[in-house]
Amino acid sequence: MQPRLNIVTLGVRDLDKAVKFYRDGLGWPLSSASAGDFAIFKLSTGTALALYPRNLLAKDANVKDTGGFGGITLAQNVETPEEVDLVLSQAVKSGGTVIKSARKADWGGYSGYFADPDGHPWEVAWNPHFRLVQGNLALPD
Amino acid sequence: MQPRLNIVTLGVRDLDKAVKFYRDGLGWPLSSASAGDFAIFKLSTGTALALYPRNLLAKDANVKDTGGFGGITLAQNVETPEEVDLVLSQAVKSGGTVIKSARKADWGGYSGYFADPDGHPWEVAWNPHFRLVQGNLALPD
Repeated sequence: MQPRLNIVTLGVRDLDKAVKFYRDGLGWPLSSASAGDFAIFKLSTGTALALYPRNLLAKDANVKDTGGFGGITLAQNVETPEEVDLVLSQAVKSGGTVIKSARKADWGGYSGYFADPDGHPWEVAWNPHFRLVQGNLALPD
Repeated sequence: MQPRLNIVTLGVRDLDKAVKFYRDGLGWPLSSASAGDFAIFKLSTGTALALYPRNLLAKDANVKDTGGFGGITLAQNVETPEEVDLVLSQAVKSGGTVIKSARKADWGGYSGYFADPDGHPWEVAWNPHFRLVQGNLALPD
């Protein structure tokens, strides 16, 4: 199996609201491959982000959904500590919620978390140990 | 906020077991940026995949974890229907579980789901409407 992650799909309760958050609030580019109750964003980091009704997503994956956190977080790394604060504010203005205020992290960086309108947790992090090249993580082998 | 997803982190119960699944079973490249209880894989699709103890991940994100599915699925798109079957078999040989057998999908493709050792759902899909260029989704604007 090749080391590839092509799409991360977030289950949402209200697709229009979620699309508004990502497209209009955060300013992300909705792809014209979106159709019906499936919305997909083309991200500059490669892996696409899709939105789909949560009940249909659970049914599609054949998993039981009792609600709540499922042990997965998403992260965006940014270039400076100040950018962490800016991104968190933009998320709040767009209808997100700060679930962990930005602070110095024990690993030497600065980060905070917001939840999107469906509660999916996004960390926004400045990590001095991770090099970013045009927004992409340049991890060592 | 730029349209970027740098890291997807999966919460795991047994880090060694999860690393064995992804590194030794699926053959994915573990980055030397991994340290302590944090493992990170460099994927050819850009966004990195990290593994971290699930209790610490929930604590870090300041969310309550009641267990189970959290409304997020991961997907790998492949070039042919046959490759869907091959990837699902490799996942099973590596310690994963097929949670939805591969079948024709109503959207015109062929797909199935496996769960990794921690239950995180991965769809493996052949989608004739999505073009892949060297393993990367080439979505229209």
